Amino acid sequence: MPTHHFTPTRYYNTIGSHPPALVVADGDTVITTTIDAFGTDRHGVSVAGRPNPQTGTFYVNGALPGDVLAVDLVRLTPDRPTGFMRDVVAANVVDPAFAPSLPEAQLREWHIDPAAGVARPAEPLLHLPGMALALAPMIGCFGVAPSLGQAISTATSGPHGGNMDYRGFCAGTTAYFPISVEGALFFIGDGHAVQGDGEIVGTGIETSFEVEFTLRVLKGRQINWPRGENDDFIFTAGNARPLDQAVQHATTEMLRWLTGDYGLTVNEASMLLGQCVEYDLGNIYDPAYTMVCRLAKRWLPDAASRA
Amino acid sequence: MPTHHFTPTRYYNTIGSHPPALVVADGDTVITTTIDAFGTDRHGVSVAGRPNPQTGTFYVNGALPGDVLAVDLVRLTPDRPTGFMRDVVAANVVDPAFAPSLPEAQLREWHIDPAAGVARPAEPLLHLPGMALALAPMIGCFGVAPSLGQAISTATSGPHGGNMDYRGFCAGTTAYFPISVEGALFFIGDGHAVQGDGEIVGTGIETSFEVEFTLRVLKGRQINWPRGENDDFIFTAGNARPLDQAVQHATTEMLRWLTGDYGLTVNEASMLLGQCVEYDLGNIYDPAYTMVCRLAKRWLPDAASRA
Amino acid sequence: MPTHHFTPTRYYNTIGSHPPALVVADGDTVITTTIDAFGTDRHGVSVAGRPNPQTGTFYVNGALPGDVLAVDLVRLTPDRPTGFMRDVVAANVVDPAFAPSLPEAQLREWHIDPAAGVARPAEPLLHLPGMALALAPMIGCFGVAPSLGQAISTATSGPHGGNMDYRGFCAGTTAYFPISVEGALFFIGDGHAVQGDGEIVGTGIETSFEVEFTLRVLKGRQINWPRGENDDFIFTAGNARPLDQAVQHATTEMLRWLTGDYGLTVNEASMLLGQCVEYDLGNIYDPAYTMVCRLAKRWLPDAASRA
Amino acid sequence: MPTHHFTPTRYYNTIGSHPPALVVADGDTVITTTIDAFGTDRHGVSVAGRPNPQTGTFYVNGALPGDVLAVDLVRLTPDRPTGFMRDVVAANVVDPAFAPSLPEAQLREWHIDPAAGVARPAEPLLHLPGMALALAPMIGCFGVAPSLGQAISTATSGPHGGNMDYRGFCAGTTAYFPISVEGALFFIGDGHAVQGDGEIVGTGIETSFEVEFTLRVLKGRQINWPRGENDDFIFTAGNARPLDQAVQHATTEMLRWLTGDYGLTVNEASMLLGQCVEYDLGNIYDPAYTMVCRLAKRWLPDAASRA
Repeated sequence: MPTHHFTPTRYYNTIGSHPPALVVADGDTVITTTIDAFGTDRHGVSVAGRPNPQTGTFYVNGALPGDVLAVDLVRLTPDRPTGFMRDVVAANVVDPAFAPSLPEAQLREWHIDPAAGVARPAEPLLHLPGMALALAPMIGCFGVAPSLGQAISTATSGPHGGNMDYRGFCAGTTAYFPISVEGALFFIGDGHAVQGDGEIVGTGIETSFEVEFTLRVLKGRQINWPRGENDDFIFTAGNARPLDQAVQHATTEMLRWLTGDYGLTVNEASMLLGQCVEYDLGNIYDPAYTMVCRLAKRWLPDAASRA
Repeated sequence: MPTHHFTPTRYYNTIGSHPPALVVADGDTVITTTIDAFGTDRHGVSVAGRPNPQTGTFYVNGALPGDVLAVDLVRLTPDRPTGFMRDVVAANVVDPAFAPSLPEAQLREWHIDPAAGVARPAEPLLHLPGMALALAPMIGCFGVAPSLGQAISTATSGPHGGNMDYRGFCAGTTAYFPISVEGALFFIGDGHAVQGDGEIVGTGIETSFEVEFTLRVLKGRQINWPRGENDDFIFTAGNARPLDQAVQHATTEMLRWLTGDYGLTVNEASMLLGQCVEYDLGNIYDPAYTMVCRLAKRWLPDAASRA
Repeated sequence: MPTHHFTPTRYYNTIGSHPPALVVADGDTVITTTIDAFGTDRHGVSVAGRPNPQTGTFYVNGALPGDVLAVDLVRLTPDRPTGFMRDVVAANVVDPAFAPSLPEAQLREWHIDPAAGVARPAEPLLHLPGMALALAPMIGCFGVAPSLGQAISTATSGPHGGNMDYRGFCAGTTAYFPISVEGALFFIGDGHAVQGDGEIVGTGIETSFEVEFTLRVLKGRQINWPRGENDDFIFTAGNARPLDQAVQHATTEMLRWLTGDYGLTVNEASMLLGQCVEYDLGNIYDPAYTMVCRLAKRWLPDAASRA
Repeated sequence: MPTHHFTPTRYYNTIGSHPPALVVADGDTVITTTIDAFGTDRHGVSVAGRPNPQTGTFYVNGALPGDVLAVDLVRLTPDRPTGFMRDVVAANVVDPAFAPSLPEAQLREWHIDPAAGVARPAEPLLHLPGMALALAPMIGCFGVAPSLGQAISTATSGPHGGNMDYRGFCAGTTAYFPISVEGALFFIGDGHAVQGDGEIVGTGIETSFEVEFTLRVLKGRQINWPRGENDDFIFTAGNARPLDQAVQHATTEMLRWLTGDYGLTVNEASMLLGQCVEYDLGNIYDPAYTMVCRLAKRWLPDAASRA
């Protein structure tokens, strides 16, 4: 399958039915770049505005509403030596009565060292002088154009994907999105060199990326929320507030997957999930929070993925 | 330190200021038994009612309000060859519109095979015929008498602990509870041979246990929510609804821990948590849900635990 | 029916199976006093601790688990010339990012003038110099002993009633509680001379009361949450977090009432509620929030109350 | 000021930067029509799709980002003799365990009789045979184009307004929206002849309307959420899930209004709201719920509106 090298010239702050920047065939691979969440590129130049400007759109020939877009995240490489983060936990993740004791957040620079495979605060922390975090690049925001002609802010997320800030969206993972428009119209951006669960300071270590991904169309599949898989797990993502509702979306989608594609009864799927499910917190910062329902493939009746 | 062998003769469905069943010294170890969530003992005899009858109370000499009780979970051994589970995910963990399509839940028996280290459905599942889950015994409900003379149902949880159903409460973990009454008055029960995140079917594999634990009093410590640690992690548990509030409690408690005991500033603690924190879903079934905020000890300024 | 004049000598900070202070017959009326939320009586003397100390318990002969206790609130009279309030909205009712801009709350004294029927700040407000609020006395916290031997803090609420802080609990209203223990064991306290919806500053105008109420046992009725009625409305109260769940409890209870006692089908009840229901916010401050589902009696098939 | 008679020829299912259908001057009045939530017009003809197709856009000369659009709802007249409703409460407003007992919802027709001022079920209800509800026409969905080029589904709501389903948006009310784009781009639709609090069946009595409204630009005002006022009250609307967050948005916006425009300190505003505020439930059905924070004008330092 061909590989396209694409250099973006404009970026989007909404995920919607914007004009195609590149048309690809089903199964093609794309190598391109993303800029950071504030719109700064690999050269340190501000080329777009907030929030989370997206590279795209990528139009996939043959993709139609009702199909599923599979996105194989082949490689996610931070492509500049710096990143930044907010340095105070967000007010919404602490007790309301505790919030007033939080200092005002500042942006802190980090040095990203791909050779050593770590990121370090540009200015060492007094009580954590040796802090060096293993790079674990992930995509904060990606997805496909939603239904109804909606153009949804890249600050938030929904059934179409968007700003989920889940660290499981890393190289080696395939993400699945429900297609609502012809061509699917894929967007990608908001790379994090490192991020904890929940993105509780409101950022990961934000930086620009070179990304490589393959786009495949699964015809006639029906999914309601983003799904994903890697070598070991299948997972579903629910995006909503409160977290309870995100759990409901993700769990319902997993039940649909297990009963619809793996042939389990609701009782069998329940017994399996009841004793084996794991939940990951994507983000608890954005307008919609993200919870992920995850199941080890070893428990599945057949190890082949069925998206 | 002495080890007490204690045989319970009564059980409690509330965690409150009930009379001491055993008085121990600070640092003593107790070996005793717990019955299952429905009140059935190791012989299959129903000896107490629902919910989650507790063995206790254990009065620890020297424990006073304002101190912390450390509970080292030394050993948790299922002590009968059967357990049971509900076989349908709970209505509150799926989308409301999906709930009507759930079948009515039944109880299913499991065989527990300590020699093989696995549990299997007593009646094999049609599409998961070889299902055998590694035993991972954990305590669903434990804690200490709360303040104000409250007697809190063992169906729920709070600052005093209670029915958190977190699978991190397993052997090798130390749990910490804030003491509200003289003697601490410790309770323990509701053993699960296996349980997935969230206890989303409303049970783990429920069974009776032999348990061994050590009770230590940390004088003059001040904690607001249950804490815990094992070889690799420290963690805090928040108990509330919605999950968002449970996250707030757990994160606030972790910030207090990192700033109060490990000497980090709020900014340092935020930067560390922002990129390194992990959240675990305890339960999303009980009246209060449980979220756990967890941090690898390797990131801490000093590996020694400070509870 | 006889009227009892009862002078309390002790107060409770939990609603539980405490010893009867007065035994009454089904249908008896009680005139007694309550102290304010901080434990100060009509003479300004501190006679109990926080939170919301209750007068009680009132044991009603013939009341059994499974019955319902009807409490006719005949008269609620502030009985001292002062009250107090917190003077800043609670952090949990504003946007988290706004919370840090709230000043620290202080207690403010109010003058209560029963002759004029108003309350005024003891120290006039600069920009609201003529502020005088019509007295609208209500009971913040009342209810009956819960099941399982629980003793539930008077800071919170549940199916047994408790600290609902709903301003519809005023004279002329009948409240209904599900009875869990023999004698019902009724408690009452936490009078507010005035209160806005939600108790968003964490208090109403807190003061001591003389109260008069009639206790009636409705045999063999089955309710799950507190209900109430006045001349014009029937209502149900749901106590939980988030408010969404409180709405679910209250709405479900109203559906049970309309289908169980008024003979409506679920479709008829839905059509009636869908176009005619009103919701009131009890409190959004306490550990459990309260939402009330209210329906005008004029819509009911038969105007007679059926509790 | 001139009055425009406008006949719509197309409708929108998103609120976004769609092309102007009518350009008006600041202060002009518009008389136009809206179709029902499913897209049916006054003649019973289906002319648009779901959800909640909007009439618009109305471009107001002189309106700029950062200004406020005042919409005086002069007249809302159902203009056909029929409407419809869903006949079962939504699954999300009852306890999850109760949801399976709800029957499947059907649409029910209503007769709207403007002469008599009432609506009646087309097919009388067995147990509510005389049901006749006073017409109380309101607008379910209206607002202005949001920021960032977003196009937001008319199923939901946000700072820009949208599908709030609040029955206080009736004739005699002025609504205020924060303007994000040049010309404001106002939309209106989704009329309800009658609706209970919360829109708990998922509809009011849905029908087509003739509407008359005046559009005014308030220069240099800064609001964050929709506001409104009528003869007796000012109010703010918060749109979010859970309801708790909707309350936070609405309360914060009211505090900003009272401190920013009425000159109260936070303490004074808190004391006033604490004892006098009322909250209304807009909807608890749509993707974003709506809570309204309402204050009687009689309490304000100066009765003149300051939007």
